[in-house]
Amino acid sequence: MRGFLIVGNKALTKPFSLNDLPGAGRMDVLCRCTSQALLVSHGIRSDVEVYLLLLGPPEPPKAVMVRGGEVRRMSPDERNIAGHIRKALGVECGEDWTEVHSGVYVARKSLERLLEELTNRYKIVYLKEDGVDVKEVNIPPEPLFVIGDHQGLTEEQERVVENHAIAKVKLSHISLMAEQCITIIHYELDRRACFFEIA
Amino acid sequence: MRGFLIVGNKALTKPFSLNDLPGAGRMDVLCRCTSQALLVSHGIRSDVEVYLLLLGPPEPPKAVMVRGGEVRRMSPDERNIAGHIRKALGVECGEDWTEVHSGVYVARKSLERLLEELTNRYKIVYLKEDGVDVKEVNIPPEPLFVIGDHQGLTEEQERVVENHAIAKVKLSHISLMAEQCITIIHYELDRRACFFEIA
Repeated sequence: MRGFLIVGNKALTKPFSLNDLPGAGRMDVLCRCTSQALLVSHGIRSDVEVYLLLLGPPEPPKAVMVRGGEVRRMSPDERNIAGHIRKALGVECGEDWTEVHSGVYVARKSLERLLEELTNRYKIVYLKEDGVDVKEVNIPPEPLFVIGDHQGLTEEQERVVENHAIAKVKLSHISLMAEQCITIIHYELDRRACFFEIA
Repeated sequence: MRGFLIVGNKALTKPFSLNDLPGAGRMDVLCRCTSQALLVSHGIRSDVEVYLLLLGPPEPPKAVMVRGGEVRRMSPDERNIAGHIRKALGVECGEDWTEVHSGVYVARKSLERLLEELTNRYKIVYLKEDGVDVKEVNIPPEPLFVIGDHQGLTEEQERVVENHAIAKVKLSHISLMAEQCITIIHYELDRRACFFEIA
């Protein structure tokens, strides 16, 4: 499995307008991240899970989980994925995962609580521009990558992530958008998993 | 400079609804490609040009050019970029480029005509799954990458592209979405341009 956790510090925690995703606390960023994490050409990565942590008003925190192996009717456009997230935000939920529909779940979880849960199944890797170059790192099996939204993590969030992470990794000398980091991580791992393809 | 040409065989050639980009001949694909080609975190790649070739009804062919060094008010969400394209499709144009607004141009150009023009300034590279692994290729300066939409190029289009291309390159053993190919090409070229970053 590969996991991705994207932290949306401003992302609304109630149903929002599909006609203004940037205005919904940069929900567009979370949609693109989900798309790039789960989808390939005419297919879905069944071995990927996406965790979106929404921390904007009115009811933070909320976490949305999308399982590639279970989700149905997900297409790569932002509006489609936003529809899945909006539906999840309209569902009553507690601290345990509630299934919204096939492959999509919602819960009230803080960053700390979510990471504690995820460390049971994943090795946490923090993607950050001051990390070690990805080419110099052995990414462990079962990695989960933590990525900030367009504004990155707060100092306090960084401390929480670093307490759980086994590595801090950077991808490029250029500051990239969150979804670009996800595409590149997949590319690097796909190549490493397929040795005969590597030059 | 780096260029990208994305061929949208079904993409509408008249103004379309921003609320249904997939229904506008998979305009969502062209929007994501434009976003991933031009934008990085909080910035735009001023050395990139994007060419969208729209071949759907009612008035094909139309080409839209976006210059990273000139364009203003472009944000990474699909709806914003779709707005730029829609505006371009509402402008009367002939075979030469007409400026729609800062950095966005439109013209009536076939694939052949567009490639003839582009070979004056660029080395054409065709991104295709049966090409040579990108790790084994020296990408020349001033490359322009030709990418099909979700359905790829027709056989006739392939012949036209191959007549102009200096190389056919593949990126992964996994079949990727067009915008993912763009993100990865940037990543590969950014690393090659910055040798001290390479492990």
